[in-house]
Amino acid sequence: MMNTPLTIAPMLERAEAYFPKKEVVSRTLDTTHRLTYKDIGKRTRALSSALEKLGVQRGERVGSFAWNHHRHLEAYFGVPGMGAVVHMINIRLPEEHLVHVINHAEDRVLLIDEDLLPLIERVKDKLTSVHTYVVMTDKDTLPETSLEPLYSYEALLHDGDEAYEFLRDIDENEPAAMCYTSATTGLPKGVMYSHRGIALHTLSLGLADSAGASENDVSMPVVPMFHANAWGMPFSSTWFGSKQVLPGPYFTPKLLAELIEEEQVTISAGVPTIWLGLLQELEQGNYDTSSLRAVLCGGSAAPKGMIETFEKKHDIRFVHAYGLTETTPLVTLARIKSHQHDLSQEDQLDIRSTQGMVVPGIDIKVINENGEVNWNGEDMGELLIRGPWIADEYYNDERTTEAFKDGWFHTGDVVTIDEEGNLRIVDRTKDLIKSGGEWISSVDLENAIMAHDAVQEAAVVAVADPKWQERPVACVVLKDSHRASKDDIIDFLRPQFAKWWLPDDVMFLEEIPKTSVGKFLKRALREKVKQ
Amino acid sequence: MMNTPLTIAPMLERAEAYFPKKEVVSRTLDTTHRLTYKDIGKRTRALSSALEKLGVQRGERVGSFAWNHHRHLEAYFGVPGMGAVVHMINIRLPEEHLVHVINHAEDRVLLIDEDLLPLIERVKDKLTSVHTYVVMTDKDTLPETSLEPLYSYEALLHDGDEAYEFLRDIDENEPAAMCYTSATTGLPKGVMYSHRGIALHTLSLGLADSAGASENDVSMPVVPMFHANAWGMPFSSTWFGSKQVLPGPYFTPKLLAELIEEEQVTISAGVPTIWLGLLQELEQGNYDTSSLRAVLCGGSAAPKGMIETFEKKHDIRFVHAYGLTETTPLVTLARIKSHQHDLSQEDQLDIRSTQGMVVPGIDIKVINENGEVNWNGEDMGELLIRGPWIADEYYNDERTTEAFKDGWFHTGDVVTIDEEGNLRIVDRTKDLIKSGGEWISSVDLENAIMAHDAVQEAAVVAVADPKWQERPVACVVLKDSHRASKDDIIDFLRPQFAKWWLPDDVMFLEEIPKTSVGKFLKRALREKVKQ
Ligand SMILES: Nc1ncnc2c1ncn2[C@@H]1O[C@H](COP(=O)(O)OP(=O)(O)OP(=O)(O)O)[C@@H](O)[C@H]1O
Ligand SMILES: Nc1ncnc2c1ncn2[C@@H]1O[C@H](COP(=O)(O)OP(=O)(O)OP(=O)(O)O)[C@@H](O)[C@H]1O
Ligand SMILES: [Mg+2]
Ligand SMILES: [Mg+2]
Repeated sequence: MMNTPLTIAPMLERAEAYFPKKEVVSRTLDTTHRLTYKDIGKRTRALSSALEKLGVQRGERVGSFAWNHHRHLEAYFGVPGMGAVVHMINIRLPEEHLVHVINHAEDRVLLIDEDLLPLIERVKDKLTSVHTYVVMTDKDTLPETSLEPLYSYEALLHDGDEAYEFLRDIDENEPAAMCYTSATTGLPKGVMYSHRGIALHTLSLGLADSAGASENDVSMPVVPMFHANAWGMPFSSTWFGSKQVLPGPYFTPKLLAELIEEEQVTISAGVPTIWLGLLQELEQGNYDTSSLRAVLCGGSAAPKGMIETFEKKHDIRFVHAYGLTETTPLVTLARIKSHQHDLSQEDQLDIRSTQGMVVPGIDIKVINENGEVNWNGEDMGELLIRGPWIADEYYNDERTTEAFKDGWFHTGDVVTIDEEGNLRIVDRTKDLIKSGGEWISSVDLENAIMAHDAVQEAAVVAVADPKWQERPVACVVLKDSHRASKDDIIDFLRPQFAKWWLPDDVMFLEEIPKTSVGKFLKRALREKVKQ
Repeated sequence: MMNTPLTIAPMLERAEAYFPKKEVVSRTLDTTHRLTYKDIGKRTRALSSALEKLGVQRGERVGSFAWNHHRHLEAYFGVPGMGAVVHMINIRLPEEHLVHVINHAEDRVLLIDEDLLPLIERVKDKLTSVHTYVVMTDKDTLPETSLEPLYSYEALLHDGDEAYEFLRDIDENEPAAMCYTSATTGLPKGVMYSHRGIALHTLSLGLADSAGASENDVSMPVVPMFHANAWGMPFSSTWFGSKQVLPGPYFTPKLLAELIEEEQVTISAGVPTIWLGLLQELEQGNYDTSSLRAVLCGGSAAPKGMIETFEKKHDIRFVHAYGLTETTPLVTLARIKSHQHDLSQEDQLDIRSTQGMVVPGIDIKVINENGEVNWNGEDMGELLIRGPWIADEYYNDERTTEAFKDGWFHTGDVVTIDEEGNLRIVDRTKDLIKSGGEWISSVDLENAIMAHDAVQEAAVVAVADPKWQERPVACVVLKDSHRASKDDIIDFLRPQFAKWWLPDDVMFLEEIPKTSVGKFLKRALREKVKQ
């Protein structure tokens, strides 16, 4: 067969040729843009040529520091299209991490949203590799800034070649993009995505039994484009010719609800917090969400109650998915198999609230000290993953050795797997509590506590114990004007768990420390509890 | 990213693990089998181990000479699973071609259906590479035969290792399967399919906008498993976990209709002749075909009237697709784009009767003597194809040089392409009629003639002409007890075509010579007309 490589630019070329009039609706700081794939194609080609003129070399990193909008989409294609690597930088990183990832990735050029300039200005003296700054703004004049040299994105495009030919001689294993993990467990780790990995991952999103990404779709990634490739949606929407809705900076649940109604969004993706916010908005306002065929949810576990409300109350299919930055990210998603269509709604909901089954192309294995665990939904083990869109290393990072072993990526996630092959994420290995030789799932305890009426949020961490090695302690944030005591919480848990699972203590906090993408920062919490 | 190869065995491993109870319903000469993927997995592993014991070496060819049934499915996975190449031999080849393809492919082992043994017996003395014959039968005793050594497939499986581990160290570019073209234009040409090509092609079948192959499906390939991999359906059904219905030997339209109703078939695939037969059966019997979500049709052009009847009368979605043995085969399929949903039924039918748009992953180009043709639905040119599941050569065949040039496969099909990118197959280059420097499409004339009430079939070929170079002559087969004269036919065509397109002569024949898969054999027809 022909050794045609699996690369990224042909995805956009397909959209240009076959869906030239399809829209990309993009909200930016100043306005809402309506561009077509024909426009996006020309602009992306101009961007590629501009990057060449700026001296970006093949394989070098170009950082993006931006919200979800069309210019970011252009960077997704324009950077790899000219042979460089687009590094999507998390705009919410603490300063120290921000400096680390830019220097560690050796970004040469930074494409920065106007409103985010101050964040880069603040760290600019510590940046060691960047030679050029580009500001993405709708305005004609350059903003006041200490960054230099600074170019206007639109001016670069204006002088660029909109007939630029994307590189043809790219090897599919060359890197195309790069993200760092969200640093829930330590310093962010860099992951390089190859053209091949992204192309195959994108195909998996188009599968009928996966996200079923289609030309009929109007797709709105709420998950940031700097978080694990916005789960690949910008690629799948472009390749398959979907209309795209990019919600831009500082969006609110209200704005999302309006976009869904006005743009007739059919599929959207985001973390649980986003969907909790949207649910609240849907209760208040009167929105028509009938166009939505599915919302994808991942990044943290989706509470069952939320899934139920989406499906029963709003008749919106809720697809619980699981993945990591290291896995491009899609690994599993929950779906009902054909022989389960007759199950009760309740049983189906149980399946929908697992993290689901592995998608075609990926292999998994769950192991503990006894080898592979049984598929019984009970035995816990660490999840190992293998496949063509799974990283095989952290970029220039010693932590590679512990995570990538014997051809498998060791996720650090503890899971059970049931008879049907559905995974349930029990905990991270680093957060599991080992009491008297047995494991206690912090996630299970948290979910149970969060079902208490007075509780806003809860996180459970281990504290050292002379007798049992480790014991669980719960950290609870109460809802405004609600009260509950330690005993209330423990009594509430008592009927649901074995006695030795019950937390030794309950601490009431103002808030739970979180990562840049809103995950519980248990390292920090453990420190706090120790004190 | 990990360099996990794209290979075939993991597709079956996925079905074994995640869909162990899903059924493969298989009709054989004596009975109907109901196996599960768990059964199929064990049997396939046993087959792989048996082939090893028979001395089959990595990369060697194992020929299958069989109808569509579970043993053939096992060969699809078991042969490549142990590193060899499964050569699906067309059971309807004339003797001379049969000998040619077996010797040319250098098949070492032949897996032969019991009822097809006589066809191999007849040519056995001319076979130069085969060292072992295996008969696929439900019976306990071996049939009388002059073939030797002869083994029973079931006995081999019985002695095989059902826990055999499929080879892991296969390079994705190694060959996995092989088919020969249907010889419409000359001697059959051999095409080798790599593991990678088949895996990517299979993903393309699962895309929501392509065949959308799903675990929910009950899929029935009517297209023979020896014809371009049964269009990849055995692979997609297995990988995605669909129930399979394999109609076995000597099926009738009645049997197909019954299988659809009884097994609740959701998707089926075949050439136009099959669907014409089924339509007639549906008129006569009273079948419930409501489970069918789509029939795929390719191999020859699907008449518009047939598409209309399927969709309007039976409410069955008819998907017109195009491909070649050289392309694994899927290249294009007709689908309505989202902005076309408001078009009239008639306009949508026009789109559905084109061969449609290229699937993601494949590139096409249409060229004539002036370069690339305009996308106007009128300019004709030869279709060129490129992509990771497109062959880059004919196996050991000089004809490689004319068909594979500059990184493109030259299909020999003349097409137009419209503004939306939909292809219409106008003719084969070898069948186009060049009159006074202009091209006449034999296919257009044939379709027009076949719309005449008295006409059963019609083929149009070129005859040499001193003045115009070539002129069209129509060969017509009349329906039983119908009559029509040359003038009737020409008068019928007159209002539809420019004068110079009208055939110079109309010859009435008893039948039109056809290939082993039912395509008009125009070479033979041209000879006939010359005489
Ligand atoms: N559906 C889900 N349910 C539960 N947990 C999930 C789900 N999806 C993702 N996760 C969690 O998120 C992790 C992947 O997140 P990500 O790659 O963004 O960085 P991180 O693991 O939080 O950060 P770091 O690896 O730097 O500590 C998974 O390992 C898992 O723990
Ligand atoms: N949907 C379709 N409409 C019209 N023609 C089609 C369609 N699908 C396939 N074909 C024709 O079938 C051909 C591919 O058929 P196949 O590979 O089975 O062998 P063949 O081309 O008939 O034989 P050979 O190449 O040996 O002469 C295409 O080149 C095209 O001419
Ligand atoms: Mg992680
Ligand atoms: Mg051909």
